[in-house]
Amino acid sequence: MTIRNFTEATLTAEVLRRIEATPNPRLKQVMTSMVKHLHAFVREVRPTQDEWFEGIKFLTETGHWCDDKRQEFILMSDTLGVSMLVDFINYGKEGQETESTVLGPFFVEGAPELPMGASIVKPGTVGEPCVASGCVKGADGKPIAGAVIDVWQAAGDGFYDVQTPDGPNLRARFRTGADGKYHFKCVRPASYPVPHDGPVGRMLVATGRHPMRPGHLHFMIEAPGHEKLVTHLFVRGDEYLDSDAVFGVKDSLIVDFEKTADGAYATRYDFVLKPARQSARAA
Amino acid sequence: MTIRNFTEATLTAEVLRRIEATPNPRLKQVMTSMVKHLHAFVREVRPTQDEWFEGIKFLTETGHWCDDKRQEFILMSDTLGVSMLVDFINYGKEGQETESTVLGPFFVEGAPELPMGASIVKPGTVGEPCVASGCVKGADGKPIAGAVIDVWQAAGDGFYDVQTPDGPNLRARFRTGADGKYHFKCVRPASYPVPHDGPVGRMLVATGRHPMRPGHLHFMIEAPGHEKLVTHLFVRGDEYLDSDAVFGVKDSLIVDFEKTADGAYATRYDFVLKPARQSARAA
Repeated sequence: MTIRNFTEATLTAEVLRRIEATPNPRLKQVMTSMVKHLHAFVREVRPTQDEWFEGIKFLTETGHWCDDKRQEFILMSDTLGVSMLVDFINYGKEGQETESTVLGPFFVEGAPELPMGASIVKPGTVGEPCVASGCVKGADGKPIAGAVIDVWQAAGDGFYDVQTPDGPNLRARFRTGADGKYHFKCVRPASYPVPHDGPVGRMLVATGRHPMRPGHLHFMIEAPGHEKLVTHLFVRGDEYLDSDAVFGVKDSLIVDFEKTADGAYATRYDFVLKPARQSARAA
Repeated sequence: MTIRNFTEATLTAEVLRRIEATPNPRLKQVMTSMVKHLHAFVREVRPTQDEWFEGIKFLTETGHWCDDKRQEFILMSDTLGVSMLVDFINYGKEGQETESTVLGPFFVEGAPELPMGASIVKPGTVGEPCVASGCVKGADGKPIAGAVIDVWQAAGDGFYDVQTPDGPNLRARFRTGADGKYHFKCVRPASYPVPHDGPVGRMLVATGRHPMRPGHLHFMIEAPGHEKLVTHLFVRGDEYLDSDAVFGVKDSLIVDFEKTADGAYATRYDFVLKPARQSARAA
């Protein structure tokens, strides 16, 4: 059988026929959907050869910006709302459990574990002093012992440590005791732009968008028998809560950062973890 | 107005709202379509966070494989049938004009211009000697003078010059005279695998596909008053004509490579160029 001479109308079917023998059924499902949507996009916008090559160059440049400290594709996914879509699909909102939000491109594996109550702030860091505290609980309201809390944040000038030459700062792990409680010293989160000196920044400018995120603290909390929680706490009153460049704000994650008697700030939040589930994929 | 607390259902509309102020109408059209299809793909396959991160890593690695001699994103576009889709959209098939096919990742700007009849083959190159000849004509059948013919090909071992450390080879430009005729010495094209030591190669293996292309000569032909033609001539009888890894074969581009009295091969093809048109984009 001769299977050449495809047309705009028949080519997609031939590409799908070629991947029919994909051994892994999940990969086959993903590739089939991807080819259909990619081809549908191309049919819809009907790019010229030059336009398509601009797209190729844009993806190439995005890849070239990625290294061990910069993940431009995650930033692309974040700023196109895809990361939050994946978040909704996987985590959703049920009952009183703490809602999730984007991981973002600045998480670093293997942050130092500090004793409860310690400061995550290196001397000389820009920012107003702040204490964050609260409890890690299960859906039953009982405190969770042995929960590992990864926390990370930008300094008061809006930069994460990995964006500076100054070495590790403003990130740590804490482990809860029998009371499930946590507290640590940080800086009051400030709004800041996502890195916008690369392709994602050009995309934001070209589409009339700003690169700002409302101030927030990042948390990743893991505990045996519970689902991993990736979330933020946002600063109530921040001017960018309604236009977060990565679509990450949820009302339930906005908290007060109140000035205390000693001139520092303090915030309190109790995290409620979901019980572990069999499959990570929603129906 | 508070516009937080998106859901899986409302997030896409918010992303589209954010890009509504895109100043360039064409970019707005492309971005709108891209966001819709990207989100639809994600909704359809419902990736876990880990699966989505695998996708991010795959794109990142694809970018990292790209340099001035390797274009892995073009290869991705080619092997997913997208490059041919763009080709169909832009060039189509009308009347007796020569059909187009993919540019591929091995075109190099600024190949040396050689006198008509010259060899594009450096001494010591693997491959059987071959002569390609014919004429460049307009749709009216008249020869075109001053047509610039870029030709490039792989050696008999399947490698393009840019895949070896040996410097420029097997590529040149020729310029037609008043008779529109061309002829040059090359090697008989052999089937070969697209570069498959990178992410695209892994994708092909994972989807049960081979990386082979049927043997072919690449041509890019430009002449004043005519549309640029990017095409191949394929070797009749090649075992991969029906399963070209990049979906590039069209029946009208398959030609005979016949053995001549002196033991070399010869092929003949007359290219027919389309008249130039106002816009490069089909309706």
